Amino acid sequence: MEQKKILCVGLVCLDIINVVDQFPEEDTDTRCVSQRWQRGGNASNSCTVLSLLGAPCAFMGSLAAGPIADFIVGDFSRRGVDISSVAWQQRGETPCACCIVCQKSGSRTVVLYDTNLPDVCADDFSKLDLRQYKWIHFEGRNADEQVKMIEQVKSFNATQEEKNRITVSVEIEKTRPSLYQLFPHGDVVFVSKDVAMHFGFDSAASAVKGFYGRVKDGAVLICAWAEKGADAKGPDGTVLHSEAFPPEKLVDTLGAGDTFNASVIYSLSRGGSLQEALTFGCQIAGKKCGVHGYDGIVL
Amino acid sequence: MEQKKILCVGLVCLDIINVVDQFPEEDTDTRCVSQRWQRGGNASNSCTVLSLLGAPCAFMGSLAAGPIADFIVGDFSRRGVDISSVAWQQRGETPCACCIVCQKSGSRTVVLYDTNLPDVCADDFSKLDLRQYKWIHFEGRNADEQVKMIEQVKSFNATQEEKNRITVSVEIEKTRPSLYQLFPHGDVVFVSKDVAMHFGFDSAASAVKGFYGRVKDGAVLICAWAEKGADAKGPDGTVLHSEAFPPEKLVDTLGAGDTFNASVIYSLSRGGSLQEALTFGCQIAGKKCGVHGYDGIVL
Repeated sequence: MEQKKILCVGLVCLDIINVVDQFPEEDTDTRCVSQRWQRGGNASNSCTVLSLLGAPCAFMGSLAAGPIADFIVGDFSRRGVDISSVAWQQRGETPCACCIVCQKSGSRTVVLYDTNLPDVCADDFSKLDLRQYKWIHFEGRNADEQVKMIEQVKSFNATQEEKNRITVSVEIEKTRPSLYQLFPHGDVVFVSKDVAMHFGFDSAASAVKGFYGRVKDGAVLICAWAEKGADAKGPDGTVLHSEAFPPEKLVDTLGAGDTFNASVIYSLSRGGSLQEALTFGCQIAGKKCGVHGYDGIVL
Repeated sequence: MEQKKILCVGLVCLDIINVVDQFPEEDTDTRCVSQRWQRGGNASNSCTVLSLLGAPCAFMGSLAAGPIADFIVGDFSRRGVDISSVAWQQRGETPCACCIVCQKSGSRTVVLYDTNLPDVCADDFSKLDLRQYKWIHFEGRNADEQVKMIEQVKSFNATQEEKNRITVSVEIEKTRPSLYQLFPHGDVVFVSKDVAMHFGFDSAASAVKGFYGRVKDGAVLICAWAEKGADAKGPDGTVLHSEAFPPEKLVDTLGAGDTFNASVIYSLSRGGSLQEALTFGCQIAGKKCGVHGYDGIVL
């Protein structure tokens, strides 16, 4: 039988990455050092990383036909990501983000237009054959619908033997109240530094402790904190920590969080311990920050 | 016989225009209010306007196959611009500019990548059948090569009867010394306010007087000065002037200069007087500033 896949549900967009020497001042003309088109979006980036790590994976998200979608489809195909479950929308446009990456500081500034393309809904999700997946990761977006999708996974799991059940992970990255309803719906929950700080937490450890009351029994809660590494709390109550593994030279931090998530999922999905997964996530994310794009994150 | 065309030689690029409420701070994520893709580049914009005015026209510039070129080709085709003479390059990428337009401050910040695509060269130009053109406009770029192209036009003209000769116009927009060699090569020469100010002129009238010594005998020199209108000097030595025709509400000034050039060329190519052409250029450029993009510049 074919190996079961990891499915990531969320955004795919086009990132136009402008590498500059210095962040532009308002109302000036800057010629950038280089420019590249890159497939972006959290779930989409995590698929790239899973694929590079060697895990069969699939992406589910919305696309609208046109030149942006052509580019994206070509890139998914190059990475070997299964996109048979993409929801092709009749209205709206595939989102595009203009990113300014500053070589000197390593900063990434993103201007995203992401409003008029309908999101994947529970009805689209119901058409999937869930037997092909061992893990489904949700990038928190249209959370009301995503909760319904997760209910479908729960119903499916209830009919399956233990070994065939699907693990559900969710990412709560943006400070949008509707997303917070996802906390109790993941077996593994990723909460961002941004959300943690928004709630007044000043470290990954305090965030996983503070948010743990929101997750369901037996769940794992993980929070990465950039150069401070990442912390996790599982059902045994211990707070685990991994240091960051910064590259010798910071080159490009765009997608580092998505790399961390994918690496943690990869490790856990292969039976790694929470500590192993946390450390692995920090290692691969660190490598990613030392290279442009994703090639070279796995040695 | 088919009507002879106006050929514009120069840049085509993709402009991605991001409208934001506030200019983004470094290392943040901003959601923009709207985003649009627009075919840009001076010569390319002038073709759009010529086409809207009803003049058969053609564009010559470099493109590299890929999704940006697909978008550009589609847009040229929508406008009915002949691109059969585009130089398809094997290396380099079609240039793309990310523009951040701030609604509140009116600022326009541009990050452009325009370095690695070879320009059209004299050898490409020699492949044209010049009999199909009545006017060739050069946006000053790789001036050394462009001078060679203009020599080719002169040789062609020497073999033709008066009525079949091609008029040559050149645009000197950027303050780049290599471009100044173009002054004596146009029958009609457009010099920008930017270049004029760089040379210490403080009005269109003083610029056309001051630069007139650089143009060839019998040539026309034209300088537009934004909301101050435009001035021109021809072989009879008189300095002509047209006021600007500002729209009721300033909406989008991007491409106003290219609109002016195209409208002047259109009028002169149909036998209009210099004064008529100058006034028509200011009228159409004014209309353009009152609309987004180019639809609606001709009533």
